[in-house]
Amino acid sequence: MAGNSIGKLFTVTTFGESHGPALGAIVDGCPPGLAISEADLQGDLDRRRPGSSRFTTARREPDQVKILSGVFEGKTTGTPIGLLIENTDQRSKDYSEIAPLFRPGHADYPYHHKYGNRDYRGGGRSSARETAMRVAAGAIAKKYLAEQHGIEIRACVSQLGPIAAQQFDWSVVETNPFFFPDPSQLEALDEYMRALKKEGDSIGAKVRVEATSVPVGLGEPVFDRLDADLAHALMGINAVKAVAVGDGFDVVTQKGSEHRDEMYPDGFASNHSGGVLGGISSGQPLVAEIALKPTSSIMVPGHSIDVDGNPVEMVTRGRHDPCVGIRAVPIVEAMVAIVLMDHLLRHRAQNLDVSVTTPVLSMRD
Amino acid sequence: MAGNSIGKLFTVTTFGESHGPALGAIVDGCPPGLAISEADLQGDLDRRRPGSSRFTTARREPDQVKILSGVFEGKTTGTPIGLLIENTDQRSKDYSEIAPLFRPGHADYPYHHKYGNRDYRGGGRSSARETAMRVAAGAIAKKYLAEQHGIEIRACVSQLGPIAAQQFDWSVVETNPFFFPDPSQLEALDEYMRALKKEGDSIGAKVRVEATSVPVGLGEPVFDRLDADLAHALMGINAVKAVAVGDGFDVVTQKGSEHRDEMYPDGFASNHSGGVLGGISSGQPLVAEIALKPTSSIMVPGHSIDVDGNPVEMVTRGRHDPCVGIRAVPIVEAMVAIVLMDHLLRHRAQNLDVSVTTPVLSMRD
Amino acid sequence: MAGNSIGKLFTVTTFGESHGPALGAIVDGCPPGLAISEADLQGDLDRRRPGSSRFTTARREPDQVKILSGVFEGKTTGTPIGLLIENTDQRSKDYSEIAPLFRPGHADYPYHHKYGNRDYRGGGRSSARETAMRVAAGAIAKKYLAEQHGIEIRACVSQLGPIAAQQFDWSVVETNPFFFPDPSQLEALDEYMRALKKEGDSIGAKVRVEATSVPVGLGEPVFDRLDADLAHALMGINAVKAVAVGDGFDVVTQKGSEHRDEMYPDGFASNHSGGVLGGISSGQPLVAEIALKPTSSIMVPGHSIDVDGNPVEMVTRGRHDPCVGIRAVPIVEAMVAIVLMDHLLRHRAQNLDVSVTTPVLSMRD
Amino acid sequence: MAGNSIGKLFTVTTFGESHGPALGAIVDGCPPGLAISEADLQGDLDRRRPGSSRFTTARREPDQVKILSGVFEGKTTGTPIGLLIENTDQRSKDYSEIAPLFRPGHADYPYHHKYGNRDYRGGGRSSARETAMRVAAGAIAKKYLAEQHGIEIRACVSQLGPIAAQQFDWSVVETNPFFFPDPSQLEALDEYMRALKKEGDSIGAKVRVEATSVPVGLGEPVFDRLDADLAHALMGINAVKAVAVGDGFDVVTQKGSEHRDEMYPDGFASNHSGGVLGGISSGQPLVAEIALKPTSSIMVPGHSIDVDGNPVEMVTRGRHDPCVGIRAVPIVEAMVAIVLMDHLLRHRAQNLDVSVTTPVLSMRD
Repeated sequence: MAGNSIGKLFTVTTFGESHGPALGAIVDGCPPGLAISEADLQGDLDRRRPGSSRFTTARREPDQVKILSGVFEGKTTGTPIGLLIENTDQRSKDYSEIAPLFRPGHADYPYHHKYGNRDYRGGGRSSARETAMRVAAGAIAKKYLAEQHGIEIRACVSQLGPIAAQQFDWSVVETNPFFFPDPSQLEALDEYMRALKKEGDSIGAKVRVEATSVPVGLGEPVFDRLDADLAHALMGINAVKAVAVGDGFDVVTQKGSEHRDEMYPDGFASNHSGGVLGGISSGQPLVAEIALKPTSSIMVPGHSIDVDGNPVEMVTRGRHDPCVGIRAVPIVEAMVAIVLMDHLLRHRAQNLDVSVTTPVLSMRD
Repeated sequence: MAGNSIGKLFTVTTFGESHGPALGAIVDGCPPGLAISEADLQGDLDRRRPGSSRFTTARREPDQVKILSGVFEGKTTGTPIGLLIENTDQRSKDYSEIAPLFRPGHADYPYHHKYGNRDYRGGGRSSARETAMRVAAGAIAKKYLAEQHGIEIRACVSQLGPIAAQQFDWSVVETNPFFFPDPSQLEALDEYMRALKKEGDSIGAKVRVEATSVPVGLGEPVFDRLDADLAHALMGINAVKAVAVGDGFDVVTQKGSEHRDEMYPDGFASNHSGGVLGGISSGQPLVAEIALKPTSSIMVPGHSIDVDGNPVEMVTRGRHDPCVGIRAVPIVEAMVAIVLMDHLLRHRAQNLDVSVTTPVLSMRD
Repeated sequence: MAGNSIGKLFTVTTFGESHGPALGAIVDGCPPGLAISEADLQGDLDRRRPGSSRFTTARREPDQVKILSGVFEGKTTGTPIGLLIENTDQRSKDYSEIAPLFRPGHADYPYHHKYGNRDYRGGGRSSARETAMRVAAGAIAKKYLAEQHGIEIRACVSQLGPIAAQQFDWSVVETNPFFFPDPSQLEALDEYMRALKKEGDSIGAKVRVEATSVPVGLGEPVFDRLDADLAHALMGINAVKAVAVGDGFDVVTQKGSEHRDEMYPDGFASNHSGGVLGGISSGQPLVAEIALKPTSSIMVPGHSIDVDGNPVEMVTRGRHDPCVGIRAVPIVEAMVAIVLMDHLLRHRAQNLDVSVTTPVLSMRD
Repeated sequence: MAGNSIGKLFTVTTFGESHGPALGAIVDGCPPGLAISEADLQGDLDRRRPGSSRFTTARREPDQVKILSGVFEGKTTGTPIGLLIENTDQRSKDYSEIAPLFRPGHADYPYHHKYGNRDYRGGGRSSARETAMRVAAGAIAKKYLAEQHGIEIRACVSQLGPIAAQQFDWSVVETNPFFFPDPSQLEALDEYMRALKKEGDSIGAKVRVEATSVPVGLGEPVFDRLDADLAHALMGINAVKAVAVGDGFDVVTQKGSEHRDEMYPDGFASNHSGGVLGGISSGQPLVAEIALKPTSSIMVPGHSIDVDGNPVEMVTRGRHDPCVGIRAVPIVEAMVAIVLMDHLLRHRAQNLDVSVTTPVLSMRD
């Protein structure tokens, strides 16, 4: 299949440009019998929506999703689920002046050379607006995983520029505009972001995601390992530059006697592995972190070239997030859900048990 | 396709266990007309081979690869290339006592729960021995990319435990047993590894890989981005826990004005992006780094359980690398080659130009 | 990918039920730069549309297709093309009484047992209404193949019940309501169909399809042969029970000396092979035929059971084609176009020539 | 994946040329726990083997298959199964004179134009010798289907040239060299084949295949229907020119009231559908037929051209079957087994029942 699909058995295919008439997705392979409605999808879409805080872009889209097929009398039928979001706020004029320019840090340059005919309005297909469909599709997977297997997936911004979470209080994540788990630093964050906005600059972020109650056994070595497919899905989110599972880059300085998670009859003693051993889920919570680069659309002038190779200096005006990491939270959850769903189905295909008791994790290290 | 294949158009499928009679691979989708011989594959196999330095496992396998099909009169025919390496040193007795135990940090526990019937000899399919076939298959891709497009791929160990390379002198990488690019630290490395071996412990490592002359345009957004597929391929290597492209996790604290690579008529001014923008190659050198965990097979006793859930304390005897990162170097190159090859073919399918002049990179930052 | 996608590089994924709000498709992998508009798709949709003759179902749907993405300033951009057709004539009430019944010859019984939750309205997903999206998607492929390679694809009803075409005058195919190539039998056909309609019964049909100017070399042995992929695509059309390439079942009684198409410097002397040798296009015109069963929705009472296993006698009322073969003509063309397009891209990926001069075919046997 | 793989979850990938050192296959996705040995595969290989009767090619290959991985202590482990058959009888000299010629009816011409570098020895990859690996792989699927689900697959030659079976006595199929089910015509067949051999000509054949106890529900509409995937697999066998399911081309002249299989509480009253409704198995026996063309390697001189376009007259000497249909019987069974196995896994992935009671078929019509 071409590049706009993800998943082998639970397959999500998306279409749509930032300033086209609509975005859409087809979710193929969802088992029948799942109760699902547009409201189930809207919650995560609203969390991702631009304009939900003053630190995300001011573009106002209701992002109202419609289910066009695959659901009958409130339940999935096993046939493909068609999803549609109409674009209602397409100020194309904002973008016309940058048509012949390659915005530094953006996909303009490679898109131009790859495809030739490039929809330059708001980044076209390369805009993060496309991720709305991933969130909608992922919400279906999230519901299935939660209802059928008690799997819970949650993400938060664990670092924003220099400000890193020192504690993970998940109860506050949804109550602050930064999806940040450390209430003691919310004020500092707010101040930092105000200053950044004044500068017209942007900043990177780190997002952490966890999934609990993942059954032992998901993942198909040697190439379609669970962690490899997670890395594919997470690195495929706009602006992501790194993906880590468990201790990630910290393992470089760890010794074998430190890193390995010892086991006892009642469970693992630690979770350095992040829930994956040999590419297969271990029953420990799945833990991953990603790094998102600062958005390239900033008010600080930068050097670039135009399509004819002439030098230009440019500023990217318009409605842009100073930190794309913030809105990435529901996208990350969605991608993890899609991967887990796909692997759950692949695992089940081989008639393998999906109910192996998750070992109790004595401690989170 | 099931989990032991990688690549959509240039597809590598492998089989084989650590202690079975043979390892094999099928490389499907290689264009016809490429001059290839067993000698072309043997070079990288020898670089990966156990026993090539005193810091890698003492297992002695000649790892002699045979080409069984797909090559006629010295050139590929476009039909699948069958590869075979016979296992000649299979000391099964070494492993029999650990059959009912789950070695901590190993894939034993999830393999047992996923498949039930587990080949416990040397880790069976989960052993890194399987990567020999990736190296052989990758050597075909490397040769094609170099001959047809001048693409060069090279990797090195950029950090080993606490010792990080301060300079990248690629000319020394192949002349020391650590594939390390910083000659000033070779002595310290040697000392560190000797001490580690005495302790019976192991250590993590970081491997860096670069590809130059990659044409602008490779990658298929939105899911099969070049960086996403690289992340999939690299995270799929045994022991890898993190993958970074370009500045990786450093982007978290970068501002947009710092991170974006400004362009001038003669090229990019920097390479924070690592050669990928919007999931498509930019013409900058492709740069990635991975973290490999310390091997879990160590002499330090550890707590675990057996298949019946009873507590055990165990030591993993046998022939093991104190740092798996060292032998990973040719594997990393192979996986990058496979991904680039696959994307080159996918790009070409759309009748797109593969010869866009790579912008001159004024400086490597 | 799940079951609602076809094509590896030119991938068409569809959604939608007979009586849902809309049908849709995503066409992924279309090269950039193709001039395409909704009008280009509408022509074939109108040919397939119900109600276009008195011998097709009286359901009236304008089948107006919208292009929602992937086209910018009139040309494809290389990004996925979203297509949508809203269902405007969904008389759900017609079908409510048959909800608990399995109509004989229909997909009701296996859909019920496979999925449990079945959209019984008009057959739901199993309705041939879904093929509208294939026609729309296929029109894009047809245009590309014609413009870039001069490939022309055309189909006709070559037999309808006992009435078989004795001559192939392609100029009349589009001018009669049966897409029939033999003008001498149109009157007989009209009479036959009137009588059939009076009986309330239905009849099978044979459809022939040809593609000319197909370059030598398309097809990927040994499994993804061109003829194998054609067979997959054509057998996948509703009601199709057989697929033949070239002489089809007639080869059973042919001798080798008869069947093989001899070659001369100016081309092949015959076309028994139907344009495929060893699974690869030969340059001869591609010729295939399919058999479509009579529609099962007829006024003649039939025995069946209900969901509880009770015997019932039933009549399928409603708007139905007495011969589904007639409307299949544009669907067959579309599927052939999709397969050829996919294989053209796959062929090109290997950097192979697509312009080998088609041998002149001295005679059509 | 490239063209030498079949199956999405139960994936078979093959390599090997007629006169190379070996043929091989990787069977990926076989569930763990199946007892399998080389002897289980050898039976069908022996049925397919050349030289097993005087009407098949005199080439003598023991076709001894080796299992190189994926089986531990006699049972599958869920990891890929590597299979190998060494070519022991490679008389390359036989073929050297035809190197620059395109044998009429053979794949030489399209292979030459597609790939350029063509292994002309015995047809290279286009030789039916490759199907040995399909038979070996299919034997694994056959055993699984039989043991786990009681599914039995059997094929026979139902017509050979002008001689068609009038009765289907399956008990005689394996006891005569033609795999023919009608004992009353064996003498006539023997006579016919002797005369044909004297002529130096060849003849086409029809092969029928049936699978019983197939659970209701296999198949993934709308594109990966069970019948569509069967058509793909069967048309992909060398020399096959047509595939029919159930009544096949006979449906063209059937009325709806004749064709539809009526249902009663105890089962279907007939099996015109051949066991597939709406692309999903119905519980009726699966029935398909294929047409195989006469082999093109005959002693009757034929016109052709050489690689430079010069006219030549040629005779194909060597060891060839006068009717390739005969040896196709185990290949057809293997391909049906592979498709059913793949769809069984796909079905199971969605957590759907695979044990729906097959309706009793009151009569075979």
